[in-house]
Amino acid sequence: MSLDELALIRALQAAHPAPPGMLGIGDDCCVWQPQGAVCLSTDAIVEGRHFTAADPPSLVGRKAAAAALSDIAAMGALPTGAVVALCCPGRWDALAIMEGLGAELARHRCPLLGGDTTASDRLVIAVTVWGEGDPEAKRRLVTRHGGRPGDLLVVTGPLGGSLRSGRHLRPEPRLAEGRWLARQAAVHAMMDLSDGLAGDARKLAEASGCGLLLLPEQVPVHEDVPPLSDTVTAALCDGEDYELLVAVEPGMWPTLQLAWPFAQPLSVVGWLLAEPGAWMEDRQRRRVPLTLRGYEHRD
Amino acid sequence: MSLDELALIRALQAAHPAPPGMLGIGDDCCVWQPQGAVCLSTDAIVEGRHFTAADPPSLVGRKAAAAALSDIAAMGALPTGAVVALCCPGRWDALAIMEGLGAELARHRCPLLGGDTTASDRLVIAVTVWGEGDPEAKRRLVTRHGGRPGDLLVVTGPLGGSLRSGRHLRPEPRLAEGRWLARQAAVHAMMDLSDGLAGDARKLAEASGCGLLLLPEQVPVHEDVPPLSDTVTAALCDGEDYELLVAVEPGMWPTLQLAWPFAQPLSVVGWLLAEPGAWMEDRQRRRVPLTLRGYEHRD
Repeated sequence: MSLDELALIRALQAAHPAPPGMLGIGDDCCVWQPQGAVCLSTDAIVEGRHFTAADPPSLVGRKAAAAALSDIAAMGALPTGAVVALCCPGRWDALAIMEGLGAELARHRCPLLGGDTTASDRLVIAVTVWGEGDPEAKRRLVTRHGGRPGDLLVVTGPLGGSLRSGRHLRPEPRLAEGRWLARQAAVHAMMDLSDGLAGDARKLAEASGCGLLLLPEQVPVHEDVPPLSDTVTAALCDGEDYELLVAVEPGMWPTLQLAWPFAQPLSVVGWLLAEPGAWMEDRQRRRVPLTLRGYEHRD
Repeated sequence: MSLDELALIRALQAAHPAPPGMLGIGDDCCVWQPQGAVCLSTDAIVEGRHFTAADPPSLVGRKAAAAALSDIAAMGALPTGAVVALCCPGRWDALAIMEGLGAELARHRCPLLGGDTTASDRLVIAVTVWGEGDPEAKRRLVTRHGGRPGDLLVVTGPLGGSLRSGRHLRPEPRLAEGRWLARQAAVHAMMDLSDGLAGDARKLAEASGCGLLLLPEQVPVHEDVPPLSDTVTAALCDGEDYELLVAVEPGMWPTLQLAWPFAQPLSVVGWLLAEPGAWMEDRQRRRVPLTLRGYEHRD
């Protein structure tokens, strides 16, 4: 550990005192006392893949936290803690990164309880965040595998254009929406959309043992998608939307839609099928194979 | 997500089925049901800092897991789960890395429950591992801050030469030793030695609100330290030993030493003091300021 590293840890320790009953930054481990089942996710963002050397450090830190929190939203859980592994070159402002990251966690009342810092040639931030089921949802955690044939596939907001517009640096984890959805018996399965609807919907369908029919013409296209481009492909394939994809009992959909208390409306984008395979409706409403794939960061 | 990445995730899912009652690889989060307080640590290793491009991928994976597990050992806990963020260039064999990592976790009965894979220019592996207090130790978790003035400082094995010899690629997390120590009322504080005794002992003393006196001549020197080198400095400063450092009630030390059931003997290496400051005994048994520092990866 270098003196710089020690100074950074002391600054973080001062900025993030552990909440009562928890052990935070500065020991071999953090310690907390969960109330029931714990859900946990780890998410890394890498310079040159998920952000560039020109992006503001505080936004990069914010993105690292928000992308990880989105996985907690996808379970319908309350975030209860986070740790960060920061692999940081000298040319990046580690403190500014951690300020952006800490502010995003604080915005969602998630304490930062520990981490690891190390030097590196390229900036890599791996955030691990965990949460617990909301007492108001009887501590339910919503997985990807509860979908049933005939369920409607619903998204919480418009999709596409996130990378081109720079919106991907300011993702909005749908934590309140996720918790509300976890309280509804009509919701059978849920996940967050990070790799594009075309790829992610396959994952939910597969985990639920179902086939899939997407309705591209009904997918809400984000205003960040340029108007004269192939807007449907953008909405299905761009990735980094961080909206939620939900499988909903069809008979309860009208009631759910009416009760939905958030500004951004829910949109039906497809169906789960009893028969295997991934399909979409073309403009003539014919069922054709879904050949579009999600966004690939490796490309 | 690329097709390579999807194939890797499917291989990992097949190799690491979730234990009963847990949700493992393949959802937005893993889920488990803790029995009491949870201790958790995240630890990143970076190509060119903690290992080289020439090191075998399976050993690099093993090191990533072992270094993280050592933090669980330092709390005296039982490991109960792990996730990994793998940032992997195409020139590294991701499957071999994960085999080494998975085998090390399996050796300590710690299930791999999830992760994140992404492309990267340099290999970075961030492992998050968590555990729970051992029922046989009344679920006690041992922190760094319980040390008292007058406590003996004790280490679980010889120190030094880890990086030069390549031993750093095969660290042995002292999990059984840590759990045994957590059962002893004589043990007031504990941590693992990753940055060298000279630096790490300061951290334990500071967390405990104590001063520190090290006895360099009594520090057990590892056989990996070359015989004609400055062996004491090596033992105090080399880093990556992954032995445990323990603060022990002095009156109970003879009984503890007698009861110690492990092959490698415990060694007294210093004292916690009521007065502040970090000191060492020189060869003439005079108390002089401790100027040696721990190992710095950033150098």
